[in-house]
Amino acid sequence: MSLMPNLNYGNLKDSYLFFGISKKVEAYRAAHPDKPIYRLGIGDVSRPLCDCAIRAMHEAVEDQAKAGTFHGYTPECGLPEFRQAVAGYYARRGIRLDAEEIFVSSGASDELGDILDLFDASSAALVTQPAYPAYVDASIIAGRKVNFLNAGPENDFLPLPGADTAAELIYLCSPNNPTGAVYSLEQLQTWVDWANERGAVILFDAAYEAFVEGELPHSIFETKGAESCAIEICSFSKTAGFTGTRLGYTVIPKALEREGMNLNAMWVRNRTTKTNGISYILQKGGIAVFTDEGLRQIQENIQFYKQNARVIMEALDGAGVRYWGGKNAPYVWMACPKGMKSWDFFDLLLNEVQVVGTPGEGFGASGEGFFRLSSFGSAEDTKIAADRIRSLVLGI
Amino acid sequence: MSLMPNLNYGNLKDSYLFFGISKKVEAYRAAHPDKPIYRLGIGDVSRPLCDCAIRAMHEAVEDQAKAGTFHGYTPECGLPEFRQAVAGYYARRGIRLDAEEIFVSSGASDELGDILDLFDASSAALVTQPAYPAYVDASIIAGRKVNFLNAGPENDFLPLPGADTAAELIYLCSPNNPTGAVYSLEQLQTWVDWANERGAVILFDAAYEAFVEGELPHSIFETKGAESCAIEICSFSKTAGFTGTRLGYTVIPKALEREGMNLNAMWVRNRTTKTNGISYILQKGGIAVFTDEGLRQIQENIQFYKQNARVIMEALDGAGVRYWGGKNAPYVWMACPKGMKSWDFFDLLLNEVQVVGTPGEGFGASGEGFFRLSSFGSAEDTKIAADRIRSLVLGI
Repeated sequence: MSLMPNLNYGNLKDSYLFFGISKKVEAYRAAHPDKPIYRLGIGDVSRPLCDCAIRAMHEAVEDQAKAGTFHGYTPECGLPEFRQAVAGYYARRGIRLDAEEIFVSSGASDELGDILDLFDASSAALVTQPAYPAYVDASIIAGRKVNFLNAGPENDFLPLPGADTAAELIYLCSPNNPTGAVYSLEQLQTWVDWANERGAVILFDAAYEAFVEGELPHSIFETKGAESCAIEICSFSKTAGFTGTRLGYTVIPKALEREGMNLNAMWVRNRTTKTNGISYILQKGGIAVFTDEGLRQIQENIQFYKQNARVIMEALDGAGVRYWGGKNAPYVWMACPKGMKSWDFFDLLLNEVQVVGTPGEGFGASGEGFFRLSSFGSAEDTKIAADRIRSLVLGI
Repeated sequence: MSLMPNLNYGNLKDSYLFFGISKKVEAYRAAHPDKPIYRLGIGDVSRPLCDCAIRAMHEAVEDQAKAGTFHGYTPECGLPEFRQAVAGYYARRGIRLDAEEIFVSSGASDELGDILDLFDASSAALVTQPAYPAYVDASIIAGRKVNFLNAGPENDFLPLPGADTAAELIYLCSPNNPTGAVYSLEQLQTWVDWANERGAVILFDAAYEAFVEGELPHSIFETKGAESCAIEICSFSKTAGFTGTRLGYTVIPKALEREGMNLNAMWVRNRTTKTNGISYILQKGGIAVFTDEGLRQIQENIQFYKQNARVIMEALDGAGVRYWGGKNAPYVWMACPKGMKSWDFFDLLLNEVQVVGTPGEGFGASGEGFFRLSSFGSAEDTKIAADRIRSLVLGI
């Protein structure tokens, strides 16, 4: 019998969003080679890594150059000192985790796909929409049914479960990509209580937690009872600029069980089977980020991006545009002016004022009519782009 | 309904091999703290990375420290220059690959698990046994049936498909872990022809190809027709000592299709969904390995390990022991003396002469009665251990 490929790939929709944007930008650039383009569409960081991480990775590279300090295979679930460093980072916010509840990863996007190995494909996923497209696509590849829960102005883009909400595997992202909305502790508690009642499991994407200020929760483990219903997936990408360097970590509590099977023990078995650990060099960089000095240094970049977000929000305030996010997140999520569709607003912005953003429709149907602006650009470009958006919207 | 975990984990056997070895070694050490132990059991490398890779990774770390050279997200399937470098490595042996047929990975062990995403779980796997345990375990986690094809002295540990061989997904590893046996070009051609006739797909694990000398094939793509039936999974781990640094690559030909679906295109979609690329720093190290200078430098370590293997083989020759591998592989696979069982020989070696090896039974039932010796240790320890094995066997 001939090999049968995974036919679920045939159920994936073409991922048009970023490809579509780059095609339109290239076409505009070809037609107007003299006009500079200002990018607020980028989900990638632009500032270099902090000194601590750089120094630690140079030292780790040097370790690999000498017989006395050379490191071969590292433990699959993470170097003990890496797992301790992450536990220490949580302890600063009063969250007590055992180091063995922490797993090193290549980054949140990798882990969000790999973690599905823990679940039977018959369990349906629930995705709050608009959403990071990979939640849906990774579930489809695994043959999992995906239900949606709409986020919108009516719930400030922070939907909560209702009596009729049905799903076993819940994706939550807070601070949210793309909306920048952040759940309060009470709202997260509602989700956790709901999941515990039903035996559901929450996959909590905390990739943007470092942008949270004040009393809002950074982690689902700030609630009561999350240890019996939640897995938290984190990244150094936005915390410390590791988008191209790659490193993350995942928390799977030892108390998390379903049908008599322990999910922490299952993940140990998964990692020891399907990986040989994460690069010693990168883990050393991550450990350095979570020192006192590292945590001070990464604030410089985070505050830089937050200042960009303020510049964008002031411009939108000046134009009388409604928006969400921006305060505790690197993204500002604006309503398109005059009820425009998001790709129409994209075209208008690009053609009239040479500013590039991300159409909300690309994050799912309920993102239609909204538009994502990112704070990850340079201060100069962000200022020019924000001014241009204000002028354009005021002139419509 | 409560979340259903992946119940396939319940079908995994406890992975006793390396845990069992370390428990026995620790117990011996506690009882005999004064006796040095000589390790020929290790599957990990011990020699530091070559200068080229170290220099390139230092430069890449430095790139991440400055705004003008900082790299964020890299293309999910690999930096174009990385894919070109690998294509160039194949071209040196006359194999023409398009750079888009090459995908960067975190390493062979990671990829051997992840690649199963391409196939429907209903397709049975065929594993030649003895085998790297992860082939079987990753298949079980995916809910796939695993058939075995026995390798043994009767086929020089290089089994070929017979008329009754039934499977759709074939794992082949050459040079083999644990046996060190290497398929000839004619033998690989037999496998490729067989797979093409039946529509099967071969997962070819080439992690040890750098140890091949002379006319034996390094790659399944040296055969005719492999582009329509084979995926090759490779690693810098043994080629350049990257076991703890982590980097690999995978070849999926553009001509590889099943049921009208293109496996190369499916993997592009998988990687863009389930990863955000592999670390810029590590890819720069890999590119440096495949320069003229890098390829010269890595030979130093490979020849060092090969000399260790010769020392082991000479000792076994002196003791009149039959063995396989060692010439084109870092492993020597010996028959246990006097028909002993492999764990009994393990205990004897440890207790009598303080040498640690790997019992063949740990690689599957057909490994019983055989024993793996590794060349990855120091020259001094390898010499002492080899002498002790010879004396012990001659004295039985």
